[in-house]
Amino acid sequence: MIQLDDLDRAILKLLKQDARLTISELAERLNRPESTIHFRIKKLIEKGVIDRYTIILGEPLKPKSVVAVYIETEIPVIEDFLEKYINHITKTLSMLPNVLAVAKSGRNGIMALIGGETEEQIEKFVDDTIRTLPSLRRVEVFPFTSIVKGKDVIGFLVDV
Amino acid sequence: MIQLDDLDRAILKLLKQDARLTISELAERLNRPESTIHFRIKKLIEKGVIDRYTIILGEPLKPKSVVAVYIETEIPVIEDFLEKYINHITKTLSMLPNVLAVAKSGRNGIMALIGGETEEQIEKFVDDTIRTLPSLRRVEVFPFTSIVKGKDVIGFLVDV
Repeated sequence: MIQLDDLDRAILKLLKQDARLTISELAERLNRPESTIHFRIKKLIEKGVIDRYTIILGEPLKPKSVVAVYIETEIPVIEDFLEKYINHITKTLSMLPNVLAVAKSGRNGIMALIGGETEEQIEKFVDDTIRTLPSLRRVEVFPFTSIVKGKDVIGFLVDV
Repeated sequence: MIQLDDLDRAILKLLKQDARLTISELAERLNRPESTIHFRIKKLIEKGVIDRYTIILGEPLKPKSVVAVYIETEIPVIEDFLEKYINHITKTLSMLPNVLAVAKSGRNGIMALIGGETEEQIEKFVDDTIRTLPSLRRVEVFPFTSIVKGKDVIGFLVDV
């Protein structure tokens, strides 16, 4: 396990809020010399604590509506088919720009985060694209009424 | 709806991959003058297309295991209680550092993304902290075996 001290954490917190902060701005806010901040950030990147810098997209590009969909396939007699079929579904979903995220869950489940203009439009997408897939045991839609923690996740995930 | 052209999209794609790219690096990669790139980024920020710049945290800080948990409360006779109770649960969960994201789903549902060292440890957390809440109709855990699209979302959401 990696050891981070208070200064490392303070730097990470500030960069999470605004990664455009310069070394000298960070130094001023944290009341430390620029050389210290520079060295710490270098180490944090080297150790992989900071993976990369990115942008979060704003309202104009964010879908108005978001749902989580859980998909569960039947378990075939020949187990080898299952993995291939799950891979096929996750790949197909991953290629669609309105599908924001896809995770495999257990041996025969998939959880996907899907965006759209309205909940009805997403429901139609689920009916047309997901419920028509063969050998599904269950498809359940969880519409998001509001995101309480991790609000920015949609602007992070959305494709351009 | 906002109008983005190919250059805007190309800039956004590059900044999503690496927000540390300088104006001159972007200009070179996209074969456009620096002044154009500078102007476009300025506009993208002004219009709110770029919301903000951030960092993604790497493996050392990421939980080894992640699950989605769906929680559904009973619907009380006095509806006013429902909203307050849902708010109470979402707020309580949001304060916990191992709870990466929380969304309200429908009128009486909550979806949370929870990280931990192992699936067993998260299951224990769910048993101790969530299943003990009163008036729940349903608690279902969806363990993530792998994230196929949106891999970086955990490094984006994790607290420091």
